[in-house]
Formats: sequence, C-alpha cells, structure tokens
Amino acid sequence: MKNNTNKMITSRDVDFAQWYTDICKVADLVDYSSVKGSMIIRPYGYAIWENIVAILDKKFKETGHVNVQMPMFIPESLLNVEKNHVAGFAPEGAWVTHGGSEELEERMIVRPTSEVLFCEHYKKIIKSYRDLPLLYNQWCTIVRWEKETRPFLRSREILWQEGHTMHATKEEAMEETLRMLNVYRDVQENYLALPVITGKKTEKEKFAGAEATYTLEAMMYDGIALQNGTSHYFGQGFAKAFGIQFLNKENKLETPYQTSWGVTTRMIGAIIMTHGDDHGLVLPPQIAPVKVCIIPIGEVNESVDKITNELKNNDITFIVDDTDKSPGFKFAEAEVKGYPIRIEVGKRDLEKGFVTLVRRDTLEKIKVNIDDVLDKVQELLVDIQNNMFNRARARRDSMIYNADNYDEFKNIAASKPGFIIGKWCGDVACENKIKEDTTFKSRCLIDEEVSGKCVCCGKEARYVLYWGKQY
Amino acid sequence: MKNNTNKMITSRDVDFAQWYTDICKVADLVDYSSVKGSMIIRPYGYAIWENIVAILDKKFKETGHVNVQMPMFIPESLLNVEKNHVAGFAPEGAWVTHGGSEELEERMIVRPTSEVLFCEHYKKIIKSYRDLPLLYNQWCTIVRWEKETRPFLRSREILWQEGHTMHATKEEAMEETLRMLNVYRDVQENYLALPVITGKKTEKEKFAGAEATYTLEAMMYDGIALQNGTSHYFGQGFAKAFGIQFLNKENKLETPYQTSWGVTTRMIGAIIMTHGDDHGLVLPPQIAPVKVCIIPIGEVNESVDKITNELKNNDITFIVDDTDKSPGFKFAEAEVKGYPIRIEVGKRDLEKGFVTLVRRDTLEKIKVNIDDVLDKVQELLVDIQNNMFNRARARRDSMIYNADNYDEFKNIAASKPGFIIGKWCGDVACENKIKEDTTFKSRCLIDEEVSGKCVCCGKEARYVLYWGKQY
Repeated sequence: MKNNTNKMITSRDVDFAQWYTDICKVADLVDYSSVKGSMIIRPYGYAIWENIVAILDKKFKETGHVNVQMPMFIPESLLNVEKNHVAGFAPEGAWVTHGGSEELEERMIVRPTSEVLFCEHYKKIIKSYRDLPLLYNQWCTIVRWEKETRPFLRSREILWQEGHTMHATKEEAMEETLRMLNVYRDVQENYLALPVITGKKTEKEKFAGAEATYTLEAMMYDGIALQNGTSHYFGQGFAKAFGIQFLNKENKLETPYQTSWGVTTRMIGAIIMTHGDDHGLVLPPQIAPVKVCIIPIGEVNESVDKITNELKNNDITFIVDDTDKSPGFKFAEAEVKGYPIRIEVGKRDLEKGFVTLVRRDTLEKIKVNIDDVLDKVQELLVDIQNNMFNRARARRDSMIYNADNYDEFKNIAASKPGFIIGKWCGDVACENKIKEDTTFKSRCLIDEEVSGKCVCCGKEARYVLYWGKQY
Repeated sequence: MKNNTNKMITSRDVDFAQWYTDICKVADLVDYSSVKGSMIIRPYGYAIWENIVAILDKKFKETGHVNVQMPMFIPESLLNVEKNHVAGFAPEGAWVTHGGSEELEERMIVRPTSEVLFCEHYKKIIKSYRDLPLLYNQWCTIVRWEKETRPFLRSREILWQEGHTMHATKEEAMEETLRMLNVYRDVQENYLALPVITGKKTEKEKFAGAEATYTLEAMMYDGIALQNGTSHYFGQGFAKAFGIQFLNKENKLETPYQTSWGVTTRMIGAIIMTHGDDHGLVLPPQIAPVKVCIIPIGEVNESVDKITNELKNNDITFIVDDTDKSPGFKFAEAEVKGYPIRIEVGKRDLEKGFVTLVRRDTLEKIKVNIDDVLDKVQELLVDIQNNMFNRARARRDSMIYNADNYDEFKNIAASKPGFIIGKWCGDVACENKIKEDTTFKSRCLIDEEVSGKCVCCGKEARYVLYWGKQY
C-alpha cells in the first residue's frame, strides 16, 4: 500500500470539523472530483467498507435474508404511490429526464431508497402465506441531492444496504424490525467498537411512510449525535397502497406487514469521529484492513520474515513498510492510517533480544521478545478492540446529562456537549421549541408512559427521551 | 428457497429466444418492473452473481488490484475530454438534468463506464514512478440507454466490474491487458465452464478510445457469439487528454500507459445459453448457489439428516425440498433450477439400501448406497463441472467452419449456425460488406501477417479472423 506524505492534521480540540476533513484526506480514505457533492472512496477507505459489508452480509444471511438487485431508477408515478414517502424524497431527488438524445415520456428519480420498487415486485410474487416471510436485502448506491455534503456523513451518493421484508403478521414484522436493529447494534458495538443507544424515533423524526422508526444513535467525540442506522416498521401502509395481498391458511385474503432497515458508509464517519485522535485514524482491529504494520530499521530481513510468516499463517493482515522514508516518518504514517499495531524491528533492539510493539489506541510501547510477537499481537488485537469500545462508552456516558426543567435543559445544552435525558409531553410543539431554542433534537425514546413533567412545557410527561445535536 | 410452479418452457430448438426468456423467468432469475429496460435480479439469479463476484474479486486481489468507488455521475464536460470516448457513449446516456427542484448548471450522464473519472483522479494522485503501477478496480452498476433489451444480455442497467490501471511503460500496460484477459479466461473456462476464444478486436470493433481491445468470445447453443468480456490497452491516449504525468527515475516527466477491463452480468446469460436445456437451467457446480437438492419421498428423516450433516460438514450447499408438492413436481423444479445434483431419498429405495442421485448435466440416474453418498457427490461435482466444459467445447468446435472464398463464406453463413474462420485484407470496406451481406461481424483476430487471399475481396490477406453473428 502506498502512502502519501504525512500532511498536517488540525487538532480535534481546535477545530473538530477541519480535523475530520483532514483525517479523511490524509489517511487516504476519500478524494474529491469534479462531481460536486459526491466522493471518491479510495482503496483504503473502500477496504474498510468491504470488511464491514462482509460482516453484515454474513449476519443477514444467518438470519435468513437473501440479496437481490432492483433497478436504480424509479419512474415518478411509481414514487407517487405512497404519499408520505414521495413527500419525503422527491424534493431531494436526482432526476433523469433524457435517454440518449430523447426526452423521456416520464422522468425518473435515481433511487433515494427502494421501498416502492420492492413493493411493486412483492405485489407480483406474494400470493399465499407460503410465500411469507419474504426476507430481501439489497447492497447498492442511493442518491439524495444534499446541499451541504461531508465525506461519509452526508453525501449525494451513499453506499448502503436496504433490507425489505414482508410478513404474515404484525408480530412477526415487529420482531424482524427489532431483530435487525439488534444485528446492527451487535456489528456496531462488537466490530466497529461504537457504543450505540437504540430506541424509537418520535413521530416527527420517523421515516417518511413508516409507522415506527427505530434508530441507533452514536455520540461523536465532540458530543454530537450521529444517527448510525435505522430499522422501520411499516405496518400495512405501503402494502395497502400497492394492493399487496396474500391468501392465508384459511384461504382468505390478507394484507401483509412490512419492514425496512438500512445502514450506510456513514458508519465509517462514526468510526473516524469516535476513535480518531490528533495523530490520525484509529481503527478497531475487527474491521482494520491492515492489522499490523511492520517497520524494519536497518538490516533485519530475517526477523521481519519470521514475523510476517507467523502473521500470514494466522490470517493476520499486515504490511511491511520497507520504503526509503525515515523511521520517524513511517511511524507517523502508521499512526495516520490507524493500523491497530505497529512493530518496530530495529537492529540494535534485536541484539538486545526484543522488538517494539506500539498499540495505536493508547500509543503505548511494548518491548517483546522476537519469539513472543505472535502471541502478543493476538492478545493486543483483542485488547485494543475491547479498550476502544470501553473507552468510547465511558466517554459517551460521561457526556449524558439529566435535565428536569427547561432552564436546566437550556443551560446544559448551551454549555456541555453531549446528550440530555429529558421527559416530554409528546406534543410536537415542545419538540419544535426545544430545537429552535437549543438546536437539540429528539434522538430516541427511552421509555413511554412515564410520570413527571415535560422538560419544556411543564405539563404531564408521557415519554423519556435522549436529546442532542445531530450531524 | 421458495419455488413457483413449474411453468412451461419453450423448446430451445423451436424458439431459442423464447426458450431463453422462459428460463430467465421460470428459474426465478429475473423479473420485470415498471422501469423499462431494467431488470430485477431475483435472489437465485443474484446468488449466482455473488458467487462469480467472489471468484473474480479474489483473483483480482491476488494479482495486486484494490477496489475503489467512484461517483456514479459524470459531468458532461468531463465526458467530453476524450473525443472518441464521448462519441461512443454520449448517444446512449441517461442524463440527469435536475437535482431536487433545480435545473443543474451542467447536466450529468449516469456512468456508462468510468475511464474519465479514473483519469481525473489519477491526474491528482500520480506524481512519481513510485506511484505506479496503479491497479484499481470498481464493482458497480453502469447505464447504457439500449433500445432493445434482454435479461443479462442487453440491459439499460448492467452490474459489472471495471478495472483501470496505470503503468510506467507500454510493456507493463500490455502485460496487464493480457494478464486480465487470462484471468477472465481462467474464470470463464474453469468456473463457468464456458469455452472462450480470446483475441484482438478489429479497429472497427474496438472500444471507444482504446488502442487495442482484446475480447473473450463464447458461442451460444444457437451458434451465435456472445462477447463475454473485454480488456483494453489504451496506450497514452486518455493520459495525454487528461495531462497525467509522472516523474521517472531520472526525474523526467513521462506520460503513463493505461488499461481497462470489464465483465458483466452478461456472463450469466452465457451460462444459460451455453448449458441450459429444455428442462431448464444447468449450472456449473463451481458457481451453483445450491449444489445438491434433496427430495425426501415418504418418512425418511433419519437418512436425510445423515446426508445433510455430511454435506454441511463438507461445505457443500444444499436444500431439502420437504414441501407438500408431489415428487414428480419437485424433480421437475430441481431441473428447472439447474441444481447440479438431486438426491431422491425414497423409503422403498432405502429398504433396498440405496438412494438415487441424478446429475443435472446428463440427467443420468445413479443408485448409491446411503453410506457412499458424500463420496459420490464430491466425485460427481467434479465430473459434472468437467463434462459441462468439455461438452460445450466439443459442440462449439463442431460449429466452427473454414471459408476460403466469398461464396463459401456466404453459403456457410446462410446455412450453418456457428463461427467462420476466414482471412481478411484489413480493409474496413470488406468488414462492412460481410456484415451487410451475411450479418456476420468480425469476432477477433486469430493471427496477423498471414499469407493468402481476403475471403471477401480476394486481395492479399493480412489477418485471419473468427466471424460470427452476435448477441
């Protein structure tokens, strides 16, 4: 893997937004092009995505899902079938109006999401209860014509997966909605080392066309929330709009219940903004394309070969940086790239019987006998993964505050980055007021049917929520 | 996996085109939607694609390539940079003219291929000989606004990969062009069981913007050629148009040499049209999503469990069809789906100590002792794979004819489906005349600098070519 020079990274405590952009560029994750609002995902960034895709795809298949591929265009009339849905997506569509030199009879939107395409197909293939559940997933690119874009976080083109399932009963559909939310939580916590809060969105914040939207909310280093995936329960809304019906066991026509769920390349943004530091990217071992970077100092081929053979035999990915750059430069570069472990193999160290392992999460240096390298690497990879998760969770938890009244709420919102736990009456007017006054939006419900007072209006509360600023 | 009813398949000898469409539908490979010219790739069809992708991706990585993701849109001005290229692709473009409610300042084509995007990026990241070779690949969907479409063969949206590489020397670039042609050949012959003829395209048939195009030509059951992949040598054409330069070891500026290469879901069409028969699809074991279909007849759970455990432990994919359909119906369905082996596990057969294996390629029935099933399955999977390739090659070879003069050529072209080997003077007028008179197009060059007479005009020949009708 070729690296560019180790350019300047703005400190994350000085300018977090600039720090983020610097990391994306300097770690060779993305580049820009003349296609405004879209990004090029470079090999190192794409390799992270490939690793995430492999983990998710395996879990989708283990839970009975199969992959399909729908068209990337949606005729306007098809998008119009479900009214809430079209209202949510048409205003941010990329519209194809010409094929070759001819104007199309009907313009088409480049898919912003594919509910209507799946529904049209489901209407054809669902006939009986025997056809249910239908557990489909699609890996593809979607387009949303965002005005302001940032790599991974908000881009006109987004790589994602979208699950779309149909069920005979409401219970099964709700079970699926929560099952996939938990698959996402498992992957984000145990592989991406991202602690997430999961819960239901308010009516105002739910997906256009859904009955209920469940979300995974991660907190970034700067205390701002990143919605890192959603799982929707649709009820029968789309199914009725599309006239999808099936014959049940009693040979009577029924309307099925639907879900959809998706995560995107945005997760890479969350990894950067949760784990990265002023030295660069910090990647969780489970999804790092390169787990170990070996830096030879002097004539140490034999020892490097010994180490690389051991790593190879144990399926631990690695690179050897044997370029003519200085060791110091190589160390910095390994840190920029966020390789979980670097191994400095020096001639003089070897004479004393050791090599130096540096773990990226803490930058701790560990002297290890050459014969113990493999064991130590395996131990560290597990330890780094756990430490990254625990550290992120502890940091997040330290930035969650309780507010009992509006003064407290506004005070915390103005002075402390993070989430606020606050009760709410359920009136969208309060939700809107809080947003207007503090820029905090409802993240998700913690609990329903609670007692106490709404943090905004002081009337009887019905819910407890997380509130926070959002990316 | 759920199957629909076993619908009628037109005989391939009665109406090959209808047979093909029937297979695509009845084997649940594709479906249509209101998106004209695009197809839905259903789970069974997509699983075949996933298997092909996994094989190719592994081979690309083994040969040093990395994956990237470029934008899916190309601004018109960027497409215009290479003149031959834009002339080839603009007329069949899908054009995005509006983002949200606003008309774009510059319209964008949905990528028909991504040379210009890669070149724009390469101009930014290639600085020195140390940056070369650059070996990039992209998996994505491309769009070409075809008027007449057929599933897998010619579709407005095509799933494919496109390799784009840059090299310091002409020799290295040419080596890469041929290396990837051979990777394609390896995969098509040894995994898809498709015998292919490889060679150079004529000037008239080469890719828009390439110096040389190499092709893989497969012959379908009806004797018609399917171009099943291409590998292009670009020389410095694009690099010069984009001003891409690198500092060589002597610190002098040079222009690099470029290749691109691609294969598409069209390969699935080739598999169908090479191996399929009147009973349905026939899938090579190497890429079959389901290698074994087990059909229990009567109360045979214990034996079925024994077999499925053995298959599971040996990573052989299988399904058990324990639906309430009749055995005869299930046999037919297994044949439609092209599972390489079906195992009929019958109660009465078991009492006599055997189960029946049916190989899909020959429909031969083989009685096997229940204890020998795993061995026989493993043996058959290898044998079926080999037999499918050998049978297809023998059939193809029997349909290749030599023509020494134009009467012979026209005679064969009019009466015998297949390829014709014929010499050619190199004049595009003859190439055009042959196409006009016979609908045969040049497939690829076998040899250059030959002696003899042009099969069309009778003048001195310079090349020997394969000629054939094409999909």
